[in-house]
Amino acid sequence: MFYFLDFVGTIAFTMSGALTAMSKKLDPFGVFIIAFVTAVGGGTLRDVMIGRTPVGWMLDLNYVYVIFLGFVLSIIFRKKFDRLRTSLFLFDTVGLGVFTLIGLEKGINIGLHPVICIALGTITACFGGVIRDILCNDIPVIFRREIYATICILGGMLFFMLREFNLDKDILYITTSIFIIVIRLMAVKFKWYLPTLEPK
Amino acid sequence: MFYFLDFVGTIAFTMSGALTAMSKKLDPFGVFIIAFVTAVGGGTLRDVMIGRTPVGWMLDLNYVYVIFLGFVLSIIFRKKFDRLRTSLFLFDTVGLGVFTLIGLEKGINIGLHPVICIALGTITACFGGVIRDILCNDIPVIFRREIYATICILGGMLFFMLREFNLDKDILYITTSIFIIVIRLMAVKFKWYLPTLEPK
Amino acid sequence: MFYFLDFVGTIAFTMSGALTAMSKKLDPFGVFIIAFVTAVGGGTLRDVMIGRTPVGWMLDLNYVYVIFLGFVLSIIFRKKFDRLRTSLFLFDTVGLGVFTLIGLEKGINIGLHPVICIALGTITACFGGVIRDILCNDIPVIFRREIYATICILGGMLFFMLREFNLDKDILYITTSIFIIVIRLMAVKFKWYLPTLEPK
Repeated sequence: MFYFLDFVGTIAFTMSGALTAMSKKLDPFGVFIIAFVTAVGGGTLRDVMIGRTPVGWMLDLNYVYVIFLGFVLSIIFRKKFDRLRTSLFLFDTVGLGVFTLIGLEKGINIGLHPVICIALGTITACFGGVIRDILCNDIPVIFRREIYATICILGGMLFFMLREFNLDKDILYITTSIFIIVIRLMAVKFKWYLPTLEPK
Repeated sequence: MFYFLDFVGTIAFTMSGALTAMSKKLDPFGVFIIAFVTAVGGGTLRDVMIGRTPVGWMLDLNYVYVIFLGFVLSIIFRKKFDRLRTSLFLFDTVGLGVFTLIGLEKGINIGLHPVICIALGTITACFGGVIRDILCNDIPVIFRREIYATICILGGMLFFMLREFNLDKDILYITTSIFIIVIRLMAVKFKWYLPTLEPK
Repeated sequence: MFYFLDFVGTIAFTMSGALTAMSKKLDPFGVFIIAFVTAVGGGTLRDVMIGRTPVGWMLDLNYVYVIFLGFVLSIIFRKKFDRLRTSLFLFDTVGLGVFTLIGLEKGINIGLHPVICIALGTITACFGGVIRDILCNDIPVIFRREIYATICILGGMLFFMLREFNLDKDILYITTSIFIIVIRLMAVKFKWYLPTLEPK
């Protein structure tokens, strides 16, 4: 189940990368690389920083297949992205929830402090998009609008609070994922955002 | 003492990151991430390249607290940065000296060649700022003006020359740090810079 | 022989980095860093992702010397780059062939799947240039034109096909390298490129 949702998130992130790259008029190889990096970038950065190498996607070819599928779908449906925007947004939100939990779990497995685990969850969920935007020469979108990463941090905090109650692991995971997904949906629906801070 | 100065440098680098991010009108989360990355980016890159994982800040929460403090101070004093510019510059210069030595030491500890140790010192001191500028979509400032990184290299060379004399370790560290700090102050005061090289 | 070609590729990549940095009017230190990163960036990224640390260039000072040589040559001949363009292009193409094979080999050595090995070959050959372009604040050139990275992937596929025939290792390496070099020369001569994909 969790593994299945991981692939849903991976496909959504792949397609978000491919879409961004195509709008920059890159060639198909460039589109593929940026799609790939968007999907695996956050997890790769996390794995490299905690010393879990070779990094995840190198040891499980299913990621490569899923990303290739997402890339092909992006090319086929590239004229219809406007109509697909809602589905893609839902996929992306599932990815956000699932990737945050995967990052949290990797940190817990090697005994890191909860604060660091939350950082790892946020990195896993958000830095694929950060690397995508750097490669496309934009200031990363998550630094500019929507409370995207902030939700990962809140979700991570909820996770560690609920964990104190010795809940069943599955319930803990499902509750946190649903919390992240619901808050994200509400944030976009009601246009929640953080005020910008300007010097002077 | 050295540990204390490490935090002075970390706070200065945090504030330099926060200031840059605020001037780009990022939201508070974006400001926090860029402040964080500016402070720990150089050390993280060094640790990842020498295989010292999980990277430093994941194992010592004090860095997270100090960065959070620097972030809060940046927000409180954001209207007064002009007046604080001199203090910030002094902090930053202390950071430059201390971070260079930390990088040198990590390289020596795992038996790398002095040339590589100097590279590690320079990476530790300068690449937080490089990553900050990439995330903010600028060409890194250290590539464009001031002899910032060049001073780290000179400091590293001095370190290995003095080391031949079997000086006490503390004296060696203090001398090199002060050298880096003084040269940096002089470089800015007397506007020393390297000429640009242009093809054709 | 292979080691010698590795240095030819390293020098060519160094000079391509130095040239790009000089055209952005960076100072000499900035030029050196970008030249260095262009030469070792792909291999560093590969080593970090497979956990082969400290990364390659830290353990073999010859890389540092070769890069320094390439940097000095770039400065001396910076007014003559137009006339040197053909030689540089040939060097760069040799680098592409050799670096792809080095990446493939590292992946095979630690028992990764051929698909992942091909990814490692492509990363080794292409990501130095990607990091160069990011540091210079451009969208990476390999995502925009020429079938640069695509050739690494084709070369990697040929390598694994030929490997089935139990060829002598030297013949396998030479054949693949020559294939990559010839295809690249033809691609540039006949202006082969991939069509861009645009949404809507």
